[in-house]
Parts: sequence; structure tokens; C-alpha cells
Amino acid sequence: GERNNGFDVLYHNMKHGHLSTKELADFIRERATIEEAYSRSMTKLAKSASNYTQLGTFAPVWDVFKTSTEKLASCHLDLVRRLQELIKEVHKYGDEQIKAYKKTKEEVSGTLEAVQNIQSITQALQKSKENYNAKCLEQERLKKEGATPREIDKATVKSKKATDTYKLYVEKYAAVKSDFEQKMTETAQKFQDIEETHLLHMKEIIESLSNTIKDTHLQIGEVHEEFINNMTNTTVESLIQKFAESKGTGKERPGTRLNMTVEEMLV
Amino acid sequence: GERNNGFDVLYHNMKHGHLSTKELADFIRERATIEEAYSRSMTKLAKSASNYTQLGTFAPVWDVFKTSTEKLASCHLDLVRRLQELIKEVHKYGDEQIKAYKKTKEEVSGTLEAVQNIQSITQALQKSKENYNAKCLEQERLKKEGATPREIDKATVKSKKATDTYKLYVEKYAAVKSDFEQKMTETAQKFQDIEETHLLHMKEIIESLSNTIKDTHLQIGEVHEEFINNMTNTTVESLIQKFAESKGTGKERPGTRLNMTVEEMLV
Repeated sequence: GERNNGFDVLYHNMKHGHLSTKELADFIRERATIEEAYSRSMTKLAKSASNYTQLGTFAPVWDVFKTSTEKLASCHLDLVRRLQELIKEVHKYGDEQIKAYKKTKEEVSGTLEAVQNIQSITQALQKSKENYNAKCLEQERLKKEGATPREIDKATVKSKKATDTYKLYVEKYAAVKSDFEQKMTETAQKFQDIEETHLLHMKEIIESLSNTIKDTHLQIGEVHEEFINNMTNTTVESLIQKFAESKGTGKERPGTRLNMTVEEMLV
Repeated sequence: GERNNGFDVLYHNMKHGHLSTKELADFIRERATIEEAYSRSMTKLAKSASNYTQLGTFAPVWDVFKTSTEKLASCHLDLVRRLQELIKEVHKYGDEQIKAYKKTKEEVSGTLEAVQNIQSITQALQKSKENYNAKCLEQERLKKEGATPREIDKATVKSKKATDTYKLYVEKYAAVKSDFEQKMTETAQKFQDIEETHLLHMKEIIESLSNTIKDTHLQIGEVHEEFINNMTNTTVESLIQKFAESKGTGKERPGTRLNMTVEEMLV
């Protein structure tokens, strides 16, 4: 009911804490799966680059693409490995969380008792107050309506009894109230501490995730810088030079060899 | 054959140039497909984040994850769009290349003729030289062996005729040689210019690809910085505060409401 709302909400939130841990592990696992697929696709793309024609002046450029794409694949695979390590840590934390929650459940059992105690006394208190009111009204009604002294005496006894009962429950309530308040305050503090520790741990995990992703981002940036440098070094002149050397056409006069053959023949 | 190697190699390289263009378009398309799949997976991951429990203190963190993951998906989708634009440009260039190559093929037809011309004259020159050598040797053999004057005269006539033919082909060779050399030099220069222009264009496309990828990389970096900032702003205190507000448990004393109800009742 509404009366022990505070306790229930806090107690269930502790369970939600464990659910969050599981969900964070799921989230990281899904991310790892995505990165793994991306890495595999990049490896395939690198193979495509190496399967392109090895003929013509452009051929050496495919090596630059291949190397860079392989490195990209490797960066993302490295990320996958680190994410998998992180998932293990999250699971480990989730297990610790369950143990801690079981321990807490035992520790707060006294509070739950106090909650139930004050609830039953509150109910009894309410009932006795209603009874007290009813009996007082009945006594005054009989006096007003001019009932017999015997009837009035009887009502007075009932009213007196209801007042005593009511006072008893007020005293009982006062007695359990301080016990309830003390335990509830302690438990609320305990739940809050658990919650704070949990959120701090979650934030640490997320920071670790962030750092991993940031590292990967930096590595990818380096791969990209390297690609740009390699492409800058792969000049048009160097490509034509390489091609001329591999084909032996000579760079300046492709007709030279033919001439040589004839000239030699005429010697 | 080996003799017009230079021409063939250069001519075929021009065709390889077009093949490279097609392959570069294929490479970019494959990359775009990978990025599209990655973006789709990220969108799915963002949905996962928004489907996680909305209960408990950790719930607001999923919004931070969701926003960041959606933005990541968007960065990669933006990359896909830009790569598709680039593919269009590469195809357009490929079409221009084909036109230019057809034009070049016509322009170098004179050179091909000159190549074939010098080839056939070279062959004839070689044959006439062999014939000249044979006839001279025959003439000397007959002289040594003391053949009849009639036989020697006949051989001398044949030797003379072979010498004339040989001289004729040497002259013919000299005549076509300069034409061949001039055309071949021009054509080699033309092929080299085409090759240089092609490689420059390819390098421009690759630079455009690099810039696009670099832009995306910077955008992703910004998304990540934003995530880190949002996580820093999502303090443990703010999460507990938000939770307490949403549940109305009160931060300090969850038992307060129960007490209030009883105190009011006692008035």
C-alpha cells in the first residue's frame, strides 16, 4: 500500500540497479557485435583492394588502400577485444551486486518488521479513534435526548473504555514511532549509499567505455593521417616511373628499343 | 611481338586507366555499403538504449546513450550520402575517360601505321641482309673452289642484285625511321600526358574521399566529446535527485509521509 511506499520504492530500485547493470552489459555487447561486423567488412574491403588489377600505373595505389583498410579493420577488432574485456568486468560487478543485495535484504529485515509493526498499530490507532469518537457522540446524543441514567451510565462506561483503548494505542504508537523512524532513516541512508555506490560504479564503467572508444578514435585518426601521407608520397611521377621500370618501356622514348635492334642489325 | 612493345604497353595502360577508375568506384561503393550497415546497426543500438528500463536511478543515462548513438548513426549515414555523391563523380569521370580514349585511338592510328610500316621494312631489311650475306659467301666459295667463269659471273650478278636490294631497304628504313621516331615520340608523350592527367584525377578523387572520411571522423569526435560532457553533467547527485522527485519519496526521510499521515490523524 501507500503507507510503506518509501521502503518499497527504495527496495525495488536496488533491484533496478542490477537490471541496469545487465542492460549496460547488453548495450556494450551489441556495440561490440557491430564493431566486429564492421571490422570483418573492412578486412573484406582490404581483400577487394588487393584483388584489383595489378596492371597499369594506378596499381601501387591499391597497396596504399589495402594497408590502410587492413589497419582500420585492426583498430575496430582491437576495440571489440577491449569491449569484451569490459563486458566481463560488468558481469563481475553484476554478480557482486546480487551478493550485496542479498546481504542488504537481511540487514533491512528489521526495518521491514518495524514498518509492518507501525502499520498495524496505525490501523489499530485509527480504529480506536473512530470507536472513541463514536462512543463520545453516542454518550452526548443520549444526554441530549434525555435518556435514562442507566442508559447514560452504560454509554459513559463504553466511552471511558474507548478513551482508554485510544490512549493505549497513542502510547503504543509513540513507543514504536521512534524505533520505526530510526530504522527507516538508517535504511533509507543505506539504500541511498547503495544507490550512490552503484551509480558511481556505472559511471566508472561508462568512463572506461568512453576511454576505449576514444583510444580507437585516435588510432583511426592516425591510420587516416598515414593514408594521407602515403598518398602524398605516391606522386604521379613516382607511379609513372615505377610503371616504366616494371615494363622496361623507358620513360622518354618508347621507340628506343626497336631502333636499337635495327641499328645493331646494321652493324 | 616484342618490336612494338612500347606502343602496346602504353596503349593497354590507357585501358587499364579506365579499369582503375571503375575499380575505385567499386571500392568506394563497397565502403559506402559498409558505412550504411554500420549506421543501420547504430540506429538499432539507439533503439535498444531507449527500450531499456525507465525505472530506477540509472534510467536518465540511457537518454544520453540514445542521443549519442543516434548521432553516431547520423554521422555514418552522412558519410554514405557523400560517398554516393563521390561515386557519381567517379562514374562521370569514367565516361569522359572512354570518350577521350576513343579520340586518342583515332589520333594515334597514324603512329600504329608507322609502327607496322617500320616493322615490315625491318623484316624485309633483315631478309635482304641475309640474302646479301649468302650471295657474297656463295660468290667467294665459287672463286675459292675454282668454278667456271660462267658460274662465277652468274654468282656475281646475284650478289650485285642482293647488294642493291639490301641498299634499297637500308635507304627505305632510313626514310621511315625518322617518321616513325617522330610519331612514336609524339604518341609516347601523348600517352604520358593522358596517364599523368588520369593519375592526377584519380588522386583528386582520393583526396576528396580522404576529406570526406576526415570530416566524418571529426564529427564522430565531436559526438564523443558531447557524450563525455553529458555524462559529466549527469552526476550521481542529479540522478538520485531526479529519482526522488519522480517517486516523491523525499530524499532524506522516506518515512516522513507515513508519519505525517499519523500526526494529522491525531490532531
